[in-house]
Amino acid sequence: MYDEALKQRIKENLKTTLTGHRYKHVLGVADAARSLARRYGGDVDQAEVAGLLHDAAKQLPLPEMQDLARKSFGETLPEAVMATGSLLHGYAAVTIARDTYGIHDDDLLAALAHHTTGAVHMSRLEKIIFLADYIEVNRDFDGVDRLRALAAQNLDDAVLAGYDSTITHLLEQHKTIFVGTVVNRNALILEHQNRKA
Amino acid sequence: MYDEALKQRIKENLKTTLTGHRYKHVLGVADAARSLARRYGGDVDQAEVAGLLHDAAKQLPLPEMQDLARKSFGETLPEAVMATGSLLHGYAAVTIARDTYGIHDDDLLAALAHHTTGAVHMSRLEKIIFLADYIEVNRDFDGVDRLRALAAQNLDDAVLAGYDSTITHLLEQHKTIFVGTVVNRNALILEHQNRKA
Repeated sequence: MYDEALKQRIKENLKTTLTGHRYKHVLGVADAARSLARRYGGDVDQAEVAGLLHDAAKQLPLPEMQDLARKSFGETLPEAVMATGSLLHGYAAVTIARDTYGIHDDDLLAALAHHTTGAVHMSRLEKIIFLADYIEVNRDFDGVDRLRALAAQNLDDAVLAGYDSTITHLLEQHKTIFVGTVVNRNALILEHQNRKA
Repeated sequence: MYDEALKQRIKENLKTTLTGHRYKHVLGVADAARSLARRYGGDVDQAEVAGLLHDAAKQLPLPEMQDLARKSFGETLPEAVMATGSLLHGYAAVTIARDTYGIHDDDLLAALAHHTTGAVHMSRLEKIIFLADYIEVNRDFDGVDRLRALAAQNLDDAVLAGYDSTITHLLEQHKTIFVGTVVNRNALILEHQNRKA
């Protein structure tokens, strides 16, 4: 299903639609996703394809992103997501995966949709793509090495640290924090508390 | 209205209902609130009384706190607030201020209610009590001196730093973050962006 021909087709398209910098990042995420899937027992090819497609809509103008997102999600997305490319592009990528590549694997599509905001009760693949986006080899930010080490040890601890890294970055920049990110982070913490209880 | 006799009566009651440590904190907040009201042009006696009363319910058992909060707020408070003493005690203090001291000054009551969670569009007094709670002389945490310096310069910048300090603390402790805190922080940032625009 996720064969080399499909990967090649995606890469060729991305090479012409993304900047060189973004394309390099995407290849990094695809590699990191493969590694994490191998580490945690997922389908490595599925993870690689999700990594390749996660930013497929990232460099489109906001109105195009909104049209794509509406095709898959109608009017169900929060206003804050619809208005903000950095939150919306994952949801728009779902429509590209379906319409351009005929991918109807719900788990893969959810991983694209939620790679920036996270979600309540993410699947293993969703966590892998969420995390691969932070730790891929080209990333360089305060704490990235700690996050890479955590990702090798425990997927959920690393996802929590990913949320924390995003929130800390927004605090430092005096920027608003998407409430959904906090809701999803809280859900992960409560999930673990309940598991222990 | 906020005369010495009232302040004395509140202090005597608090001395018997709060621990020594908490009572000392309350006197610190009342002093800091007075200073901030003088600095920013508020009613210093109103600020002092609000400072004295902000933690009046802090050391009650949760069910008593819930009963007090319900007397003033019915069933309107979020579930997360009703279930959590550290978020709820300010709302419970409103009923103590009204029933025990006959205070019906909406601005003062709002300052009690919102001193922990903040609120969207806080009044000057609400900001003063919110902030006095962080910077009173007995407080000692990472960043408290920066917060004190900010509070002397700009009330809103200091309130934002107060929200940030709470969120950072919760991140470091791997604890859930009350979504209302993030909503209120976002509102303050957007308010300033709109004022500049």
